[in-house]
Amino acid sequence: MKHKLIETGIQLFDQNGFKSTSVQDIVQLLGVTKGTFYYYFNSKEELLKDIHLSYIEELVQQQVKIIKNRQTSFTKKLYEIVTLLIRNIRTERQSARIFTREMRHLSGEYFEEIKDKRNQFRKNMQRLIEDGMQQGEFQSGLPADILTMGILGITNWSYYWYNPDGEVSEEKIVDIFVHMILNGISKSNSVCN
Amino acid sequence: MKHKLIETGIQLFDQNGFKSTSVQDIVQLLGVTKGTFYYYFNSKEELLKDIHLSYIEELVQQQVKIIKNRQTSFTKKLYEIVTLLIRNIRTERQSARIFTREMRHLSGEYFEEIKDKRNQFRKNMQRLIEDGMQQGEFQSGLPADILTMGILGITNWSYYWYNPDGEVSEEKIVDIFVHMILNGISKSNSVCN
Repeated sequence: MKHKLIETGIQLFDQNGFKSTSVQDIVQLLGVTKGTFYYYFNSKEELLKDIHLSYIEELVQQQVKIIKNRQTSFTKKLYEIVTLLIRNIRTERQSARIFTREMRHLSGEYFEEIKDKRNQFRKNMQRLIEDGMQQGEFQSGLPADILTMGILGITNWSYYWYNPDGEVSEEKIVDIFVHMILNGISKSNSVCN
Repeated sequence: MKHKLIETGIQLFDQNGFKSTSVQDIVQLLGVTKGTFYYYFNSKEELLKDIHLSYIEELVQQQVKIIKNRQTSFTKKLYEIVTLLIRNIRTERQSARIFTREMRHLSGEYFEEIKDKRNQFRKNMQRLIEDGMQQGEFQSGLPADILTMGILGITNWSYYWYNPDGEVSEEKIVDIFVHMILNGISKSNSVCN
């Protein structure tokens, strides 16, 4: 039942926004009572927090798995993390949109808990780039924190426009993005000189 | 007065979301009557459309000015458009966030009108990249439409995290992003070989 409440919350928050969705709307759609809802969650905000948490925890867990693999280069790890984020669009689109849009409705402890996890994902990515610089795979001298935000911008924005069932496959999108991130689009590449 | 209604709409839509903001909230904050509101707008949705429209029209206008300049290379034009979008964060942050979050509340003619303008900005960018490829400034063989979405991802995502009053200047952010877009971050750049 907890899972069903989460699923229904995701659906309604994505459709109508967190603020415009009431606990009543959620239980009504499921055909259960408010008592059922409050057995699992203290408030609508706690449900929102749980949606955020399960979304970001899953991503961090998979990211760490990629990073810890001693067999792969930093370049390959970067490729795999971009793949993780783009593949995720198919399965987690609604959660991802809620994650972006409704974060501002979390406050206090809930906000801190989610912020910490979000930061963890970002910092893992930044560390990966820093390590890749140190090992000579990536150009040093560029600020890894800003590069990270640029890369996450490319992937996160895809949640707004990319349709995994459209003409261009996930693999193709990843290839193009990773090419741009690694090699850029300029022909007279300043790095070559 | 129309301008004040738009400003107040921007403020409240950003703060509480479009759905949770009523016409009553807007006129109350301004200390005017609902009659005043309906003198200028047919509905709350029309106000939202006008906020979207003035935001995107201004951007398209400035973008076209950059593209039409015969003195600058495609690389420089790309740099200037990224600068336009990053500089815009300081002055238009709230409108930009509404533009991203609340588009889904526009329907029918309103939706089409805004979609057309958004597409215009995107297509201008795509054309710029295609022309740059044809003239040998950018690598050909990459799909310009997907590259465009990647570049716009980098800039659009900045509206969520970048603080223009923070440690890193707008010029610095633009330099790093344009470097990544043009040259990539890899040290052993595949384009060089």
